[in-house]
Amino acid sequence: MRTADRQANQLRTVKLTRHYTCHAEGSVLVEFGNTKVICTASVEEKVPPFLKGKGEGWVTAEYGMLPRSTGSRMKRESAAGKQSGRTQEIQRLIGRSLRAVVDLKALGERQITIDCDVIQADGGTRTASITGAFVALTDAINTLIANGKLEQSPIREAVAAVSVGIVGSTPMLDLDYIEDSNCETDMNIVMTAAGKFIEVQGTAEGEAFSRQEMNQLLELAEAGIKDLLKLQQAALSV
Amino acid sequence: MRTADRQANQLRTVKLTRHYTCHAEGSVLVEFGNTKVICTASVEEKVPPFLKGKGEGWVTAEYGMLPRSTGSRMKRESAAGKQSGRTQEIQRLIGRSLRAVVDLKALGERQITIDCDVIQADGGTRTASITGAFVALTDAINTLIANGKLEQSPIREAVAAVSVGIVGSTPMLDLDYIEDSNCETDMNIVMTAAGKFIEVQGTAEGEAFSRQEMNQLLELAEAGIKDLLKLQQAALSV
Amino acid sequence: MRTADRQANQLRTVKLTRHYTCHAEGSVLVEFGNTKVICTASVEEKVPPFLKGKGEGWVTAEYGMLPRSTGSRMKRESAAGKQSGRTQEIQRLIGRSLRAVVDLKALGERQITIDCDVIQADGGTRTASITGAFVALTDAINTLIANGKLEQSPIREAVAAVSVGIVGSTPMLDLDYIEDSNCETDMNIVMTAAGKFIEVQGTAEGEAFSRQEMNQLLELAEAGIKDLLKLQQAALSV
Amino acid sequence: MRTADRQANQLRTVKLTRHYTCHAEGSVLVEFGNTKVICTASVEEKVPPFLKGKGEGWVTAEYGMLPRSTGSRMKRESAAGKQSGRTQEIQRLIGRSLRAVVDLKALGERQITIDCDVIQADGGTRTASITGAFVALTDAINTLIANGKLEQSPIREAVAAVSVGIVGSTPMLDLDYIEDSNCETDMNIVMTAAGKFIEVQGTAEGEAFSRQEMNQLLELAEAGIKDLLKLQQAALSV
Amino acid sequence: MRTADRQANQLRTVKLTRHYTCHAEGSVLVEFGNTKVICTASVEEKVPPFLKGKGEGWVTAEYGMLPRSTGSRMKRESAAGKQSGRTQEIQRLIGRSLRAVVDLKALGERQITIDCDVIQADGGTRTASITGAFVALTDAINTLIANGKLEQSPIREAVAAVSVGIVGSTPMLDLDYIEDSNCETDMNIVMTAAGKFIEVQGTAEGEAFSRQEMNQLLELAEAGIKDLLKLQQAALSV
Amino acid sequence: MRTADRQANQLRTVKLTRHYTCHAEGSVLVEFGNTKVICTASVEEKVPPFLKGKGEGWVTAEYGMLPRSTGSRMKRESAAGKQSGRTQEIQRLIGRSLRAVVDLKALGERQITIDCDVIQADGGTRTASITGAFVALTDAINTLIANGKLEQSPIREAVAAVSVGIVGSTPMLDLDYIEDSNCETDMNIVMTAAGKFIEVQGTAEGEAFSRQEMNQLLELAEAGIKDLLKLQQAALSV
Repeated sequence: MRTADRQANQLRTVKLTRHYTCHAEGSVLVEFGNTKVICTASVEEKVPPFLKGKGEGWVTAEYGMLPRSTGSRMKRESAAGKQSGRTQEIQRLIGRSLRAVVDLKALGERQITIDCDVIQADGGTRTASITGAFVALTDAINTLIANGKLEQSPIREAVAAVSVGIVGSTPMLDLDYIEDSNCETDMNIVMTAAGKFIEVQGTAEGEAFSRQEMNQLLELAEAGIKDLLKLQQAALSV
Repeated sequence: MRTADRQANQLRTVKLTRHYTCHAEGSVLVEFGNTKVICTASVEEKVPPFLKGKGEGWVTAEYGMLPRSTGSRMKRESAAGKQSGRTQEIQRLIGRSLRAVVDLKALGERQITIDCDVIQADGGTRTASITGAFVALTDAINTLIANGKLEQSPIREAVAAVSVGIVGSTPMLDLDYIEDSNCETDMNIVMTAAGKFIEVQGTAEGEAFSRQEMNQLLELAEAGIKDLLKLQQAALSV
Repeated sequence: MRTADRQANQLRTVKLTRHYTCHAEGSVLVEFGNTKVICTASVEEKVPPFLKGKGEGWVTAEYGMLPRSTGSRMKRESAAGKQSGRTQEIQRLIGRSLRAVVDLKALGERQITIDCDVIQADGGTRTASITGAFVALTDAINTLIANGKLEQSPIREAVAAVSVGIVGSTPMLDLDYIEDSNCETDMNIVMTAAGKFIEVQGTAEGEAFSRQEMNQLLELAEAGIKDLLKLQQAALSV
Repeated sequence: MRTADRQANQLRTVKLTRHYTCHAEGSVLVEFGNTKVICTASVEEKVPPFLKGKGEGWVTAEYGMLPRSTGSRMKRESAAGKQSGRTQEIQRLIGRSLRAVVDLKALGERQITIDCDVIQADGGTRTASITGAFVALTDAINTLIANGKLEQSPIREAVAAVSVGIVGSTPMLDLDYIEDSNCETDMNIVMTAAGKFIEVQGTAEGEAFSRQEMNQLLELAEAGIKDLLKLQQAALSV
Repeated sequence: MRTADRQANQLRTVKLTRHYTCHAEGSVLVEFGNTKVICTASVEEKVPPFLKGKGEGWVTAEYGMLPRSTGSRMKRESAAGKQSGRTQEIQRLIGRSLRAVVDLKALGERQITIDCDVIQADGGTRTASITGAFVALTDAINTLIANGKLEQSPIREAVAAVSVGIVGSTPMLDLDYIEDSNCETDMNIVMTAAGKFIEVQGTAEGEAFSRQEMNQLLELAEAGIKDLLKLQQAALSV
Repeated sequence: MRTADRQANQLRTVKLTRHYTCHAEGSVLVEFGNTKVICTASVEEKVPPFLKGKGEGWVTAEYGMLPRSTGSRMKRESAAGKQSGRTQEIQRLIGRSLRAVVDLKALGERQITIDCDVIQADGGTRTASITGAFVALTDAINTLIANGKLEQSPIREAVAAVSVGIVGSTPMLDLDYIEDSNCETDMNIVMTAAGKFIEVQGTAEGEAFSRQEMNQLLELAEAGIKDLLKLQQAALSV
């Protein structure tokens, strides 16, 4: 039995708080249990150099952790003078996941940057980030529509993400930090509302995993993401 | 008349929320109106190289702003590869202000790092940071006492800070972003519970200021800081 | 039909040239068609700080591309002053893949660094790197055994990697650069000799992919990696 | 009694040597006792990006110390790869102090950069820098007038700076390094010829300071700066 | 007697393999004994900012060593975040040497970048780089002529380079790593087909050298470079 | 005829001012005409890691230019975040030149760092630096002897340096900036009191140079350096 009496196939308590901060076009606090991430979406009326004059927009993401979002204090990346490989890997993943559900041509020549800043970490920060980022992105798009800058939404469908893993031989959904530290296999799944995959990233931390185990994990993830998609929809309908 | 019907000598609504995040030995969300800063205090049982073996502790601070804590998105300092001069100036100020009220010998050979991360900015982030950091520091010290690592608190007295400025010829307390952008003179005051100054930093943004104007500003600040000290005490007594 | 009359389920011509350079304990030129990577394994009798005194070894990897390994010249990362996120992501993947098949305790307190330097790129540089790196690592281990520093190999089993993808609706094995640029889904698979997975990284570049498509890709990859494992064995048996 | 038989309210011997180096539009060696700083003013017919096309000029400053300007050798900042927080804080202060006395519109779209390089340090390098920088700036402006690029000077009034502090309970003017290292309170004052303040930066190094002590320090500083303003005038009238 | 039965005035076996990699306009593997360098020439239809609109071209070089090109593994410069002084010194030398034989006006507004990447080092990497770079540059120029972008070659004459040194009192040609490590004087000579010098860089590693010794070294170098120029010509005539 | 009525074989006015600044163990202002460099020698009782415990000392150099030492303002290297290739090349040359005349074993386990900071540049800054650095080094050694830390000087002989070049077909000694900018060949020579060479660095800026021209330049340099060695001796004998 997991902490907080969770079943193996059960998500932690997930909360999506919109309008969390006041300046950004979209601003969401996403909580997966004790993991808390502020996702803001900022619209800029310009695109990166490689897109200039192509009539297309861009969606990108940056990721950071407050130094004491973790059990022991991490070195601040701005003081270290560079972002770690892990940080860059995660922000590339978030950006790809969001771009996969946006029609960049329909967005027009503007950029939306999603900042995902972890204020408290307890496992699953990247999947929580993607799940919250989608809501922030939607709010930013809606702001553009409300301001008459877009006629209709360039978002094709919703996207959410969850982690799954094999902990002590048991496949489990939405790992917290302790489970993640002890798991043999860790998998992050990004799936759309239509049930198709954008990313599947499975890593054997300890023992390698079989085709059969992978199938079990994918099924857990599919069910979990369907729940997350409903929670996003509920949050956005308020 | 200022926004939210404030008088010239009136603080914005100030809130100090302790235990805001779960990992740090001290964790406080400080709000001065729309300015919101997470202050965490992290204890490490080691000191910087220049203090090794001297039987003395250290208190230091780091400061950061989430990219969209501001009206338009700022470049993330970890992506830029360095901290701006402004960031370094502020974190040095916070560190000096806290060290001034701590008996570093009595702290013993350990370091407490205060991270002040602005999640929403509306003027006065450095003074809010100092005011909140003191509460986080106190909580961290109390944790050390509770764990038997310290017998009594090395904190000599409380410290808080506020900004004052001359806006349109009127001296005003606790400037918000719009007031700060339009002021002729901006002063940050750090004062202890005993009514003595740790820092006085006055800068003429437009016209230079006279001795008389400085005296008016100092009086406003003294009164404002006394109120902040009471709010700290109230928060810590819960 | 693919270039060079390849079938969809056919690897490019793969060559593994051992003892390619003279200084390293293991040195392999790996070629997947026009993709050419020099993999060297360097033994150092020290471990990173986090492992000191723990009686355990470490295997890590670094990755680089010569500036003109690609169709148009890339900026040299040492001149840019930092490694890109892509570079870091790849070298973390190579390192994890190799560590998954090595008993680090049995390796003893020493580090083996695998450098994978792409001298000519035509898609699949990361999977070629892993496949060649395993051979270089084995040679380095054999050098340690020949020098009496190890009694037996800490390698538990072989590992190889291949890319698969959906190009124009057809699942294909071992994508070259043109195929990779045009594929809808790109997947990198790292698998051991026992047929278990170490990494599965699938990304929808264009359209998201279904469970069924993923299964087809995994089957292609499993067959391809089995062939690569045989080629590794053949190279090592010379 | 202080070194060199100085009274508590007495400046060190101050020298301002104009035309110290030959290339810059303004070049001054300023000496406050053993503190020696080369201040050069460089005119460039362009402005920073944020001012382009606004018909306004800019005055900015950079600060540096030769590695062996100090008692023990400091690491060269160009070798370290970055400027310290202290360096950035000082150069921001010098820049702000000079801009406060210049009508940037009247300067026209050009930038004057003041470089303050300490060749020998004995306390008060930032206040000596401001005092010398004003003379270098004036010479650069006069060069622009002589070359017909400006009709009249955009300088509104003179500015100078001095440090004051409480050393062993005694308020003292213009601290040298030893006094500065032992002082309880250190204050840097930047004042204009009209007797108004541009910056007041007081820091309690040891014990916090009272309103009364601050008043004493301000009076010392006012008198000292008046003397410095006369010395500037004398140097410029040669 | 030297390794491999070489005479004091004898080059190592030199090989120049053209079309070594497939993407670059010129690509040469140069071998001086065990020293192996990949030289690629990349044409870009743009020039650095200082040459824009001047109707002139530019030839520049970059140099790198694979981490395990040497006896013990070197830190990767991209991971270190900067190029060493030695790297920059060498790439400036290669660039100057090539520019000296090219009519930059006749090249037109385009840049050719020569990348010299050492895959195996055994002394003389910079002289091998220059010798191979000239062949790669010629191939790139010939590509431009073949594509109709240039009518005739802007190369004025050939250039090659060799190291000479005094090892145990004997002047020797083309030092390998062991000889280089033990030599008293080390000299790198860059000479054109007309027998004139572009660079002469002599350094006393141990004892200083006399005019007479310098003359002996220059004679050795002249003969060696004449042989290298013939080998370049032979390679280019295939 | 050159500026200031100099003959082709004549040095500019050379001055060596010892004890130029007060903190360093050796501090010399060296002037070659309008070129002015502050050379300080700093003794530290420690050696770099690669020499620890070997009973040997180290002599090294760092070089810098004040931003406005030149005709137009250069970017400050500490602000740029790195030293240019030219800076590193020069400081390596100065360090090698000094080490060549010092018995590092006799120096003992300590390091002497020579900082050469150009405050005014008019050609020949590297040769002026070497010439002045030797005097500063000698003063630092003499300080060590005076303090009883060394019994006798580890300096084997004096060293000085000069530039020579072919300007408009005429070989000339000690080029100033204008001559250097217009010369076809530029050569820097470092020579010891015994008349032997430590460094000979000749570069064809325009046309390549012949053996005969090189001989003429070497003769000019030999005579010039003999004069510089006398001036060093005279300065040190005061």
